[in-house]
Order: sequence, then C-alpha cells, then structure tokens
Amino acid sequence: MSVKKMVYFFGGDQTEGSAEMRNLLGGKGANLAEMASLGIRVPAGFTITTEVCIEYYNNGNKWPEGLEEQVRENIAKVEAVMGSKFNDPHNPLLFSIRSGARVSMPGMMDTVLNLGLNDVTAAGLIEATGNPRFVYDSYRRFVQMFSDVVLGVEHAEFEALIEAKKDEKGVELDTELDAEDWKELVGKFKALVMEKTGKPFPEDPWEQLKAAINAVFNSWYNPRAVRYRQIHDIPGDWGTAVNVQAMVFGNMGEDSGTGVAFTRNPSTGENVFYGEYLMNAQGEDVVAGIRTPFPISELKKEMPEVYEELESIRHRLEQHYKEMQDVEFTIQKGTLYMLQTRAGKRTAQAAVRIAVEMVAEGLIDKKTAVKRVDPEQLDQLLHPMIDPKAKVDVAAKGLPASPGAAVGQVVFTAADAEAWVADGKRVILVRSETSPEDIGGMHVAEGILTSRGGMTSHAAVVARGMGKCCVAGCGDARIYEAERYMMVGDKRVNEGDWITLNGTTGEVILGQVDLVEPEITDDLGKLMEWADEFRALGVRTNADTPHDAEVARNFGAEGIGLCRTEHMFFGEGRIQPVREMILASDAEGREKALAKLLPMQRQDFYEILKTMQGLPVTIRLLDPPLHEFVPHDEATQAELAKSMGVSLQTVKDRVASLQEFNPMLGHRGCRLGVTYPEIYRMQARAIFEAACQLKKEGIDVLPEIMIPLVGFEDEFKILKAHVVEVGKEVMAEFGVEVDYKVGTMVEVPRAVLVADKIAEEAEFFSFGTNDLTQMGCGFSRDDAGTFLPFYIENGIIEKDPFRVLDEEGVGQLVEIGVQKGRKTRPELKIGICGEHGGDPASVDFCHRAGLDYVSCSPFRVPIARLAAAQANIDNPR
Amino acid sequence: MSVKKMVYFFGGDQTEGSAEMRNLLGGKGANLAEMASLGIRVPAGFTITTEVCIEYYNNGNKWPEGLEEQVRENIAKVEAVMGSKFNDPHNPLLFSIRSGARVSMPGMMDTVLNLGLNDVTAAGLIEATGNPRFVYDSYRRFVQMFSDVVLGVEHAEFEALIEAKKDEKGVELDTELDAEDWKELVGKFKALVMEKTGKPFPEDPWEQLKAAINAVFNSWYNPRAVRYRQIHDIPGDWGTAVNVQAMVFGNMGEDSGTGVAFTRNPSTGENVFYGEYLMNAQGEDVVAGIRTPFPISELKKEMPEVYEELESIRHRLEQHYKEMQDVEFTIQKGTLYMLQTRAGKRTAQAAVRIAVEMVAEGLIDKKTAVKRVDPEQLDQLLHPMIDPKAKVDVAAKGLPASPGAAVGQVVFTAADAEAWVADGKRVILVRSETSPEDIGGMHVAEGILTSRGGMTSHAAVVARGMGKCCVAGCGDARIYEAERYMMVGDKRVNEGDWITLNGTTGEVILGQVDLVEPEITDDLGKLMEWADEFRALGVRTNADTPHDAEVARNFGAEGIGLCRTEHMFFGEGRIQPVREMILASDAEGREKALAKLLPMQRQDFYEILKTMQGLPVTIRLLDPPLHEFVPHDEATQAELAKSMGVSLQTVKDRVASLQEFNPMLGHRGCRLGVTYPEIYRMQARAIFEAACQLKKEGIDVLPEIMIPLVGFEDEFKILKAHVVEVGKEVMAEFGVEVDYKVGTMVEVPRAVLVADKIAEEAEFFSFGTNDLTQMGCGFSRDDAGTFLPFYIENGIIEKDPFRVLDEEGVGQLVEIGVQKGRKTRPELKIGICGEHGGDPASVDFCHRAGLDYVSCSPFRVPIARLAAAQANIDNPR
Repeated sequence: MSVKKMVYFFGGDQTEGSAEMRNLLGGKGANLAEMASLGIRVPAGFTITTEVCIEYYNNGNKWPEGLEEQVRENIAKVEAVMGSKFNDPHNPLLFSIRSGARVSMPGMMDTVLNLGLNDVTAAGLIEATGNPRFVYDSYRRFVQMFSDVVLGVEHAEFEALIEAKKDEKGVELDTELDAEDWKELVGKFKALVMEKTGKPFPEDPWEQLKAAINAVFNSWYNPRAVRYRQIHDIPGDWGTAVNVQAMVFGNMGEDSGTGVAFTRNPSTGENVFYGEYLMNAQGEDVVAGIRTPFPISELKKEMPEVYEELESIRHRLEQHYKEMQDVEFTIQKGTLYMLQTRAGKRTAQAAVRIAVEMVAEGLIDKKTAVKRVDPEQLDQLLHPMIDPKAKVDVAAKGLPASPGAAVGQVVFTAADAEAWVADGKRVILVRSETSPEDIGGMHVAEGILTSRGGMTSHAAVVARGMGKCCVAGCGDARIYEAERYMMVGDKRVNEGDWITLNGTTGEVILGQVDLVEPEITDDLGKLMEWADEFRALGVRTNADTPHDAEVARNFGAEGIGLCRTEHMFFGEGRIQPVREMILASDAEGREKALAKLLPMQRQDFYEILKTMQGLPVTIRLLDPPLHEFVPHDEATQAELAKSMGVSLQTVKDRVASLQEFNPMLGHRGCRLGVTYPEIYRMQARAIFEAACQLKKEGIDVLPEIMIPLVGFEDEFKILKAHVVEVGKEVMAEFGVEVDYKVGTMVEVPRAVLVADKIAEEAEFFSFGTNDLTQMGCGFSRDDAGTFLPFYIENGIIEKDPFRVLDEEGVGQLVEIGVQKGRKTRPELKIGICGEHGGDPASVDFCHRAGLDYVSCSPFRVPIARLAAAQANIDNPR
Repeated sequence: MSVKKMVYFFGGDQTEGSAEMRNLLGGKGANLAEMASLGIRVPAGFTITTEVCIEYYNNGNKWPEGLEEQVRENIAKVEAVMGSKFNDPHNPLLFSIRSGARVSMPGMMDTVLNLGLNDVTAAGLIEATGNPRFVYDSYRRFVQMFSDVVLGVEHAEFEALIEAKKDEKGVELDTELDAEDWKELVGKFKALVMEKTGKPFPEDPWEQLKAAINAVFNSWYNPRAVRYRQIHDIPGDWGTAVNVQAMVFGNMGEDSGTGVAFTRNPSTGENVFYGEYLMNAQGEDVVAGIRTPFPISELKKEMPEVYEELESIRHRLEQHYKEMQDVEFTIQKGTLYMLQTRAGKRTAQAAVRIAVEMVAEGLIDKKTAVKRVDPEQLDQLLHPMIDPKAKVDVAAKGLPASPGAAVGQVVFTAADAEAWVADGKRVILVRSETSPEDIGGMHVAEGILTSRGGMTSHAAVVARGMGKCCVAGCGDARIYEAERYMMVGDKRVNEGDWITLNGTTGEVILGQVDLVEPEITDDLGKLMEWADEFRALGVRTNADTPHDAEVARNFGAEGIGLCRTEHMFFGEGRIQPVREMILASDAEGREKALAKLLPMQRQDFYEILKTMQGLPVTIRLLDPPLHEFVPHDEATQAELAKSMGVSLQTVKDRVASLQEFNPMLGHRGCRLGVTYPEIYRMQARAIFEAACQLKKEGIDVLPEIMIPLVGFEDEFKILKAHVVEVGKEVMAEFGVEVDYKVGTMVEVPRAVLVADKIAEEAEFFSFGTNDLTQMGCGFSRDDAGTFLPFYIENGIIEKDPFRVLDEEGVGQLVEIGVQKGRKTRPELKIGICGEHGGDPASVDFCHRAGLDYVSCSPFRVPIARLAAAQANIDNPR
C-alpha cells in the first residue's frame, strides 16, 4: 500500500500544486504554487494538506504515518532551490510556518517566522549575511513568536523585557537597539521561557519545526478562529493546511522591505495599484498596524525597478486570476519575492465596481460578475449614510477604512460592546488598535474607530469583511482604554457619549448626526440588471406601510409578499376600537367596534395597493393573539372600562381570560377568524372596498388575501368562503370586478403534511418560515435565548435557524409542502415570507426547492435579487 | 342510461337485500331483508338506500330522478304481499317510516307510524278491522307523530289536548278514552296543525309518505343525531337509509301486543332469553319507558305458542348471525311479526361473557371472539366498584341498568350536568326518564339515575353504550326536577348532595362510598389470553411509581414505556434540594444540591426496576421547564432564600428569569440536559446505581434511558455520551455489568425529519405524541380550550387530536420517523408513550405504522392489548 501524498512542493520549476487545489492546499498554498507555476518568484517551500490537519485531529493530535518522511524530502528540495541548508552551521535555511485555510481567515491562526535559528545557526547566518544586528533581531523575533504561539508564553512578557532594555539604554525605538542588545535579549527570552514553562527553549530546528506545524494545526480550534468561522459560516471540518516556506527578509537593511498590496482599491474598487510597505521591516510590522506604513506609490520613487516588477506582476496576476488580488511581498537586498496572492477582500462598493468594470474590460462575463459579489455584503451599500444636508462638525479625521456611516455610544472594550448591545444599546467600538480577540465586539458594534494602523490593519480588514463602518488610524484621537475615555483634539469623550463615524470619508463627528437611506448607484444598478437577467425566483417585499412599499419598489421589489395588518391596529385612533372589539361580549358588540375600524383599514389598503400599481399585494389577515392588543396596566384598563361603559372588573376579567400559557400555539391566526368570522369579514371588506375604489379610479390592483396559521383544510375552506362571499357583495356594490387570490400562510407543520388537501382550495402558499421554524424545531423564539446561543457556540446547531433557514430540518417541511401542494395544483404559486427571504443561503434553498418568489424586508431586496441570480447560475431551472 | 337501483324490497319471497348490504340499506333494512330471506315473518316493505340520502343532501334536499317511480313500484309489491292497498278506502295499507343507519343510533332520528290514514282510509280500516277505537287511536297517534316529526308541531301540545279531554271526561288513563273521544281529538289535532302551521294537515297518503321520507332524511342532521355521532365517532357522510314498511298493530286488542328482546342478557351476558313486552300497545310504549312492561317470561304463560315461536326465532337468529341479537316484535291478533333484528348492545361484562361462551358453544372462533368486544368498552370493567367492605346503607333500589359504581353530586338537568362538570365537579344525573336531548349531560355524568323506564329504556340503553353506571326505573325515588330535589323514601336529596350508585345491583346509596379497583375476571382473562395470541404489538405502561407499575403488571403490561422522573422531584423532602439546584448560580452549586437528590432518585429507580423484574423500564430524564419547580409566592420564596442563605431578591430574580413566553417551546427537555449536564448525569447515576445494586442482589433489570425533546442529532449524541460515561463509572464502581439502552423521545417535528441521523446513535425511539401533536398542529394543549371544542363541534376537526391520534397529520410524522429511523437502524425499537397509547383507534394506527409497542396508563393496558389484537387480525403483520 503506497502512502498518500501529504505534502506538495512549490518553487523553482518543481511546483506540484495549483490554484485549483485550494481545498487541499488552502488558499495560500494553492496560490503560492500557482504563482510559482506562472514564473513569479516566490520563496520555495511546501504545503502540508488540509487532509493531514483533519487526520491529525482524528488521530488524537498525532502525525499520520509517512508525514515525517515526506516533510524531510521536501526540506531537501527547498534546500536545493534556495541554495542553503536547514540547520546548517554556515548558511542556514530558515522557514516560515503559516496556516492556510480554504478561505482566508486573516490573523485568526498562528504563524511562526525565522524558524531554524539557534545559537549555532545564528552564527552561521551572520557568517552568510555579515549582519549580526539583523540576525539577532530575527533570532529574538523567532524566540518571541515561537514562545508565544507554540509554548504559550505571552508576547507582552517579552515586550516588557525589550522595554526594560530600552529604558536601560535610554532609547525609545526598537531600531535604536544594536546586535549586542538583541543577543542579550535572546538570552533573557530563553531564560523567561525556562522560568515560565519549566523546560529549555528547543534548540533543535527539526523539533522546532514539528512543534510549529502542530501549533498551526491546533490553532484551527483556538477560540478566535472558532468565533470567526461562526461569524463567517465556515465549517469546522475544512481544516487548515500548513505552509512551510523559506524565509526571506525584509529587515536586512535599507535595501530590504516588505509590503502588502491590492491590485485595485479594495475600498472604492478603483482600478489603481493600492498598497503599503515599510522598508527594513518584516511583514508583521505592516499588518499589525504598529508602525504606520507608506503608500505603495512611494516605492516607485524609492525603488523604481522593484516597483515596475510589482506593477507587472499585478497585471499578470489579474490577467491570470481574472480577479482582484491581495498580495504580500518582501524585498530582500533589492530582490523581490512574492509571498502570497489571494483574492482580495473588498468593500461592497468595491466589489460591485470591480465586477462591473471587469466586465467592461473584457476580463470576465456578466454571469461571473454576478457571481463575484457576495449578496450579504451588499447590505453595507444599503446601509444609511450621513445626511448630506446635516450640519456636521468634524472633530477628527482618520483613514476611510470601511464605508458607510454609524451612530452609537462609545465603548472602549470588545466585552463592553457585547454587553451594551445585549442591553439593547447601539455602540461604536473605540480601540487604539484591534486584535483578533476583539472579533466579538466588532461584530456587534455599529462601527469601529482606531487611533493606530493603516488601511490594511486588522480593524480595517475585518470591518470591511463585516461590511461595517470603520475609521482607522485616527491619530487625532488619543485613547485611554483603561480609564474609559478619549481626547479628540481638546474634547473629552467619555464612555457612553454619542459619536458618529463616516467610514467613507474617515470623519469622526461628536454627537448624533442624521443618517439617510442609501440609493442604488449606477454600478449597483447595472449589476442588479444583470442579476435580474439570470434569476428565476421572484423577489417581493414585506411591507406594512406605503412608505416601506415605496422604498422596496425603488429597490426592485416585484410585489408585496407580506403585508401584516396587525400593525395597522395600533395606529392613531385605532387601538381604542380594537380594544372595544376584543372586549365585546358578543358578535354584535364586536361588529359595532369593527365598523369603526373598517374605514381606517380601507384607507390603509387603498394606499398600499395604489403604491404597488397592480403588482401583487399579499395581505395577511389578523394573526396575533388578541391579548397583545389589550392594556395590561390598571389605569388604561380603567379608562377603557369607562369609555366602554362597563366595570373595571369586566375589563380585567376579559383581559385575564385572554392570557395564555403558550400564546404562540394558542388562539391566534385563522383560529381567530374561525371563531370570530366578523373580524376577517371586516378586513376582507376593507380590502375589497379599497380595491374596487382604485379600480374605479383606473388603477390596477392585485390583492392576494392570505389566511394565517392554517393547519386543517376546513379552516381554510371556511375562511375562504367568507372572503369570497364578502368579495362578491362588495364588487356588486361597486359594480366592478377585481382580480384577487385567496391563499394561505404555511407555517404549521401539519399544514405541510396536508398541503395536498389545502391546495384544493388555496390559490397560493406562502411559507411563514419564522413560525415553521418555531414549531418545527420546537423553539420559542422569545425564549430560545437561554439555550440557542449555547447551541450555536458549541456547534450543536451550525447556524441560527431564525437567521439562516434550517435546510436539514425545516427545509424538508418546505420541500414536502411544495411537492404536495403542486401535486394537487401544479400552477400553485408558492413563496416565502419569513425573515429568511432576505438571507442569501436561504434564498438559494428557496430556488432549489422550486419556490416562485421570496419576500424580504425592503432594504434586503437587492440582496435577494443577487442571491436569486447566483442560485439560478449554480442550479439553473 | 339505466337509472340506478335506489329501492330494495323485502318480505314474502321477493326479498332483494341481505345482511351484507348494511352500508347501503342501513342496519335495520339489511336485517329485515335478511330475516325475510330466512323465512322469518316480517311485515313487507322496502328500503331507500343511504346513497339516496347523500344524494338528497347534495341535491339541495330534492329527490333524485327515478326515485318516485321506484317507490311507487315497491308500494305495489307490498300491497301484493300484504293483501291490502295504500290509500284504499276499504282495506287500506298503512306504513311505518323509519330511519336506518349503518350502525344503530337508538332514538336519534325520526320515525312516523300509521302513515296513510285520512278520514277516508280510517273509515276503510274500521270496515276491515271492525275496531273503531283502535282505528281512531291509531289515527290520532299518526297525526300527532307526523305533526311533530314532519310539521314541527310539538308533541306536548297534542298531549295537552288529550289531558283536557280526560279532565273533561273525568278519567285518568288514555285507555279510558273511547273511539268517539279519539275521533274528536283527531279533529282538534288537525285544527291545531292548521293554527300552528297555517296549512291544513295533508290528507293525501302519497303526500304524507313523501314528507315523512324527507323528514327521516333531514333527521340525520338534527342536533341530537349530530351530537350522538360525535360521541360515537360516526362519520356524517354515511347517511341514513329509510325503511318504509307495512304497519302491523300491537294495539288491536288484548290478543295483540308488542315487545323487545335480547337473545342473551345484555347486562350480564348470561345465555337466557331476555326482554319485555306490553299487550295492546305499540312499540313506542315499550321503549319510551312510559308504561313499565312485563318480563318476556310472562309471555310464556300468556301466549305459549307465540312465545315458543319467538324462542325458536331467537335460536335461528343466533345460529344465523352468530351474534347476540336485539329484536323487536309485534303480535297482531295472535300472529307474530318480527319488526327488527340487530346485534344487541351490551355491557362490557356481557360482551366478554358472550364472546367467551360463544367460543365454548362452537358458534364462533377465538379470533371472532377477540374482534367482538369493543376495546374502549372494556374501560367500564376496569372502572372502580363499590368497596365490598364498605358499610353501605341502601336508600332505594332500581333496575341494574348498566354496571359499575359511581359517586357524584346530584344534578337534575343535562345542562346542569355539563356546566357542573365544566367546573371540575363529579355529578350523578338524576331524571324521571331521559330522552335523546339529555345525551350531552349523560356523557359527562359519573352515573345516571332514573325513576321510570325499564332495562331497555333510553337511559339504560344509552348508559350501557357509554359504559356508564346506571340505575333505572327506581320508583322509590320521587323526582322534582323543576324544584331541584328528590325524595328517596322520606329523605330529601337536594341538588349538590352526594350519592353513590351501584349499577350492578341497582342500589342507590346516599352520601359518598369508597370504591375499589377492578380486577380481571375469568372471562376477561381468557379473552385477554386470546388477544395476546393474536397481537403483534407489545403493550407497556406509563408508570412513575412502584404501585402503578404493579397494577399495570397485573393488567398484563410487558414493561414500562414511560417512567417520568419529574414527579419524583416533588416528593417529600425533595422539592427543597430541587429548588436549591435550580436557583444555584453555577454548576458547583447545582452539583451540591443534586448530590442530595441522588440517593432519593436511586431509591425510586431501585423500587420500580425491582417491581418490573427484568422487563424493560424506559426512564425519561428530566423534561419540564425548571420554573415549574420553583415557588411563585413570596412567602415560600423568602423561606427558600433564608434556607439557601441568599437574599429574597436573588430568589425572585432567578424565578423571574425562568419565566418564559412559551414554556412548551422553551428551555426544557434535553435542552436542560445540554446546558446543565450535571442534572442528567445525576439521574443517570441514580439509574445505574439502582440497576447495579439490583444486579448484585440477583434481580434482572433492563433500564432504557430516554432523552426527551431531541430535535438535533448532536443533542442526543452529547447526552448519550454523558449517560454512557456515567454508566461505565458506576458499573466499574459496582463491579457488575447491566444491559441498558439509550434512546430518545421523538416529539419535536424536526426529530422526525432527521430521524435517520438521530438513529445513528439512538437505540430506541418513543413517540411522544402529546407534544408531537402540540407542535405538529400548533396547538397548546393548555390553551386550545378557546377554540378546539368549537372546532370539534363544527366538524373542522373530526376528533380531539389529544385523545385520538391525528392520523392524517401527526400520523404522517410518525410514519416518516419510523421509516427514516429504521432506514438507518433496521432493528430500531419503536414505541409510543403519549396518551394515545391507550386509545384503540390510535393503537390500530400504531400497529399499521409498524411500531413495536404502545405504552398507556395502567388501567388501559387491557384495552390496548385487545385493540392491538384486533389491529393485527385486521392487518396481519
């Protein structure tokens, strides 16, 4: 039995992998191999596959058989290409060890640089480079990083020793320490390791290598990586590859440097080379945001040949990948090495612009452009912006790291952010710089402000990925995290004070500024047009007001999929007759109160139907339990009793009688309609009167009347008969005919099981996946907070089923309902109107399940349109 | 196109129907045809089919084409056989018109007798019989009945005219009125009809016939028939046949008479001829209970030849039908006519005895015997009886009309019975005599007492059908319904006073007497043995205590299908540590409290496992939400706070935090286990320690540990791992091995959908159909009272889904779960432990769905055994 190939070489002309092997080699490894194949200079190295990572875990954290041999063989190959030898006392080869998952998880997993150094090889490296300061600096960096990542000794403890050394020498900058200082510090570092771990620092490079590889494997399950995967919906069983690559050094003097760049502007999408670099530095200095780097354009002046080579590589990579790339490079003594290329993260605005422009440039076709933009990310374009008419007093300016605007109360730690948001507050997270530990807080914050770090700092990259407004590197803000305040110029901003961020301009404004609704830009408009060409699924909106309906139409909604009527019951002058209706002791009393509501409901429907101009408008008849409408405080009860001419006790008794143990499963939905048909008849009358009136005025209307919570065919039959009867009456009164449909919301599991019978009468189905999830999973949404977060954190449930449709469980109910409904009535129109209608993964499911349309909140209509297009591209109907 | 056959003739030698045609001809028509075919003398007649009834309804209450012609043809045939002519002025043929459904619905629908009389035919009948008093008595009965049934003029109004006439003549009995009196009353009756309806009484016999047939059709939907069908689960779309039959007269003088009889004693099952008759009377006089009839044995003396013929017919019918028969007969001037035969209603005791004895007699086989007894009816044998050791002071004695004993508070109207029971009271319904309007009250009463009527009176027949204790014809009780009291001897019993009935002896006892548990009789024991031979489904019991387990074993339970552990948490000395556990702020605090519970839980399990001696015992780990255990009143909260050494506010806060909007869908079941594993671990430990201890003592045990409310495979996986781990620990500590299984309760719809995945780990499934119904139908059982009764009354839902498993909806979930579970694990053991496990229709479904066992309350175990046998006879596995 031959042993499986577990290690893939790259570099020189012996490269074994390619970009297609991303799942096996991870993004970084696959792209390094691809670059090497393209003839772009990369430091040689090899990739241990993701399969090995999974096997390592399944194997009780042990290496599979044969791995060690393959690693040793590949080290020999690297030695051959790089012309130096691992653990060589004269010309030692050093390695970087990096993670590389299928998708990028920036900063989430561990990295070790300069591996292979010990006292002997350090001497050899001095011999080879003639630069003891560089060598001891590298050596101390290695000890520091290895100890942090592999041995668990905290970074800060080493930094303290460096600070002490600087104090001792009376200097301020690391660069002011010399070779001897670093050498001394290496000794101190090792002593610290001995003290903290009880074991000496490992001097054997091979031992170092094995430990570092294991540390990368282990870092796949560190808490911040797990949290990141949760936020980004990345499965845990993908695992990470490990890239072991020859070190090249950007800190070998002033002819060396390192940088990161994007082939286009990741913030705006503009087709310009965009990046940052630092001379005499290692890569971590750039991304960590500790030193503020220079724009890439400066390099053109500083090292014109290198810049030209970079520019040329930029074009080659874009032509090859047909995608905007994010690259890392190092210049070692004037020679350019590409360390990494990958599809670059970008803002939604950039994603849209790049996709549209690449079509214009002939790089990609429309279908590819539609697939290129993450629908969920569009959300950030659809977020409010600062009102251009608002009088804005800019207190400070930082880098426009992630666009959009945000208003919130200032907090200074990620933990505070999570706690305050849990209390229902909106916060801006303010940090000197963010680190992967802050992920949770960044996720819940409205926006992020940092005082240090550039456009590619942690805060900026992560915020863009989240589609969250971020102003980074705002040096005007001096932040005192421990004391919970900051100074912006001479103004003190305390924890809890309101500020407003403009991530598109980098402006920081004290106080709350009005925000305005977003609009669809030209680029987005074009992309949406293309999406509409490709999609098969209709997109409607959930809207209860003419305003929402108007907004949604502007975003391209093709109808209303859910118009809830209960919100109308709370309006001005309405709650009183609603309460009279509920508290009436008989049908006659209810009808008297309902007569007062009729003209108001008619006006509601008149306006919404008019706004939608003949597009279908699905109106759901009253759904919630009646106790939601009655007053529970004695003062209001007394008032109500007085106005109704009954005793307070009567009101109290009736209110008490409406109380339920499990209102979610109680007297609501069509059960109200069946037991109090006069309520639904009033609503039907209001709809038909509005529709007839509009018809008379020459305006097209298409009401679709939806009966909620049906579980038994007779419920639907009885209520449809009422609706049809009222419709006939009203149309006769007005002397006009209106087209309409009567259908049902499918949200009770039983309705799914007898969908074939319900479809005998129902002209459409709309899956109410919120309630279907509640009943299907047995989760009360209002109560699930006690266990659902725990379930998600512990991987018992992969994703919140109220956010992303539970395809495995609830999805089966949808499929059964579709299949049974269409069996009886092949032309049955089927939609979804739960909140899942705006979630891209759920939209994809709805497409595959054969639905006719999804309905979502107005602001998510473009997201649903794009997701629907992608779904049809992936699985054409 | 030939017209469908809508009318079937019977009588003479031209009979067209047979007993097999019961669905088409109704029970009465089919049996009349069958008797005629057997050569037993019946008055000739014809049956209009049930199909015509349905068509009549679908047709807007009109006769289908061709019906009139077929009716006329059959009238001619009757005329030929009976030798008289319909509407003949000299020798007129009269008809009875009766309903006849597929199953008997005694007294529920309408009947018209003596139809065909008018002034002309009355004169002709006098000519033919020479008996003017009989003719005018018949005539007035006809007008009275026809007017009541067809024209809607109330019976009582005619009775008032009769009373007036008797007063006028100074007589007391109807028999004291002579021909002229009746003739005069016929005139007054017709005048009353004219006054009340505005139309003359119809004189045309053909018009009379058509109207009477329609009235029978219409009576299928009268409220008491609808209510009866609901109680007895009879579908509305069966319809009723109409039997039009030549009249014969039991009131043609003292050589005429009428009676009803059973071929065996319907109360005890004894193989004796059993019945009652009245001379010179029509049938309604016997069944209405107005005159108290004579035992059939008296007829032997009075008319020996007729009695002998009856005895011979009794044997012929039993040999033919191989079933106990209930017959009606009329003697017309010494000639015996059989009017009807049908399977006789009987008590459970009689049903069992008859079935067992008929096997011994070689009439039927064991399989038929098992099929003969209605499992639901067995319930009455399993009801409590009066404690033989109780000191009983019998206040009065009536007929032992329906066995069993009952204790309750006296009410005097059916409406009061329903209202009092709705208030949670137990009542005895006391009436002079009952009528079909009383059905609702009889249904809810513990028992029924009447002062008039015999063993075949309405009260007696209906009570036996319901399996309800009844003492009938208790002349010692003088009842003042309007004044709401009765005199029993010289003792006054007011509304609300307690009495005790012994339906087996006919005794009435004032006050409350202790009742005792029933035992399995020899006959029942034999029948159960046979049932066990035929059934494929196992029968277990739901039992939480050793006592329940013991009772159930005596009733034949083969294991415990559901042992709830939460009831144990409320026991003496337990609720305190349970509350400490719940209110603890961390796992450590919970563990401390759980340690106190461990020995008590261990003792519970020890005793139950010991009782079951190696039979499987399915123990469900904690299921209800924790707030069910905490005190909600401030005093107890304060006490608890003190004993726990925390502040009252702390207790209050924690109690408040446990409050849920929809606790049914909240933090309960396995969700508790997942978030607080220490609870389930304690319970698992208690089970294993008890099991190991018993094993050491040489007693076999087979615990099956059940995880409730699983919806996601990982919930089960995680909790099974805990159980297995604890099991290993405990078995190592005790140094013994015990067999056990870990499985899940399938009660969340999602669990059904992913049953294939859950079955990868679960060793058994038990369908929790109570919760599965709640979630599947979206019904909160606690709240459904606001709409479910309305739904059932209005036929939106056929049967209460919490009583009879909703096969159409929830049944599909069970089927999907079985199919998916067995796909993964073909040997998967599957049961049901909802309350449906003791409902015969649901047991039948479980058999068809391929379940391994049902589990029900101890007293329903024999019912489930019998139902399971019948299910396997109907659909053998």
